[in-house]
Amino acid sequence: MKHIHIIGIGTGNPEHLTIQAINAMNASDVVFLPVKGAGKEELAEIRREICERYITRPAGRISEFAVPQRQAADKTYVQSVDAWHGEIASIYEALISGLPDDGSGAFLVWGDPSLYDSTIRIVERVRHESSLDFDYTVIPGITSIQALAASHKIPVNLVGKPIEITTGRRLARDGLLSDSTIVMLDGEQAFAKIDDPDAEIFWGAYLGTKDEIVRSGRLGDIATDILRLRAEARQRHGWIMDIYLLRKGRDFEE
Amino acid sequence: MKHIHIIGIGTGNPEHLTIQAINAMNASDVVFLPVKGAGKEELAEIRREICERYITRPAGRISEFAVPQRQAADKTYVQSVDAWHGEIASIYEALISGLPDDGSGAFLVWGDPSLYDSTIRIVERVRHESSLDFDYTVIPGITSIQALAASHKIPVNLVGKPIEITTGRRLARDGLLSDSTIVMLDGEQAFAKIDDPDAEIFWGAYLGTKDEIVRSGRLGDIATDILRLRAEARQRHGWIMDIYLLRKGRDFEE
Repeated sequence: MKHIHIIGIGTGNPEHLTIQAINAMNASDVVFLPVKGAGKEELAEIRREICERYITRPAGRISEFAVPQRQAADKTYVQSVDAWHGEIASIYEALISGLPDDGSGAFLVWGDPSLYDSTIRIVERVRHESSLDFDYTVIPGITSIQALAASHKIPVNLVGKPIEITTGRRLARDGLLSDSTIVMLDGEQAFAKIDDPDAEIFWGAYLGTKDEIVRSGRLGDIATDILRLRAEARQRHGWIMDIYLLRKGRDFEE
Repeated sequence: MKHIHIIGIGTGNPEHLTIQAINAMNASDVVFLPVKGAGKEELAEIRREICERYITRPAGRISEFAVPQRQAADKTYVQSVDAWHGEIASIYEALISGLPDDGSGAFLVWGDPSLYDSTIRIVERVRHESSLDFDYTVIPGITSIQALAASHKIPVNLVGKPIEITTGRRLARDGLLSDSTIVMLDGEQAFAKIDDPDAEIFWGAYLGTKDEIVRSGRLGDIATDILRLRAEARQRHGWIMDIYLLRKGRDFEE
């Protein structure tokens, strides 16, 4: 039976790769590399660098594929995601069906496959909706949450307290609910709309890469600085991936 | 100046080690290995195996130290944690002061240093409360959340929805609040007290090790099976570390 490895590769630092990830890459006949088009060429370059550095299997092959963009027009968010997953599933089906019999392939996932990533969902969709017969395993990777906390040298949680992980869309809608709130996928800079100037923000962009930027401080003091810095960096690179922790309260406060 | 590396080592699978973690271990003059006493010998053994496998620096040295137990009698939870951190800080201070001038040491942290671990907090305490002059860096590691999701081959979040990470104590008190709730540090099996039989549970123990056990299903169907399995495993090993995800709802439901 064919086998697929879904491999978390961390957040851009090639040293985030685990030994398990490197072994799985080398156990694969083909490594599939997504290319997301103009402005995201740097991301494809980091994936290529990871392959060059770690693939030692002589016959290991790399196969690049283009990832379609999500079409949001005339659709709810959920409809647009569902349709987009359907398009990607067709591409995955073609890639997997092109593997040799009993061959194996690897998808390299930014961060970790379990966190705001749909590779597992889409691979499951191919298994259910196509006639392809294959199995798969998931290899965990360093998430941007871990990379953010490591760069700021902070624990994510206060002692014994919970953490919320949410999206910019939800934060803007629901406000700051938890003592420790991690915000991912924030295209609207929802932190700047939170009316809690005494909250602390720990922000990071391009985490793990040579272009990493981190800032922290009282939200009321630095929100506008981060907005400016983020806009400049995005302009310069043509893309940005950022994440932040918002914290209310302190350790050992009940 | 002396330098400390706080290194996440993943959850017991030596292949969870990242290249960055291996390099930091080899950049350290001494690796400090906690030994948590009777019943936890297996955990110390895994740390020793990681050192044996990856430390290639000829002069690299390993120094074992005993970790005190938290004393909960006559104290609130927060008081007991604070006092316990104080005790550990004294031990860290002695270890760090024993390093050569300009030398470096490494603390190996199970999982990731940012998630329900106090090594960063305690090292900061040593910096503030002692006269020792040293700097430190944090190296991210695979968390048990990533290991759980990888073994179950599931995303942690539903599409576009938030995640709560909490403790058994909080879950028992507050109930199931989020669509996706990760429960760590649950010594009271709070899942069995949740009155939501249609929730799904994805449970795992000894994740990443050769003794890994995972179970998933409808909470109402398998909660008692997990209770029994957990009690048996704990009896057999003398210790247990487990984690679970509770999920309500499905992808693409608004």
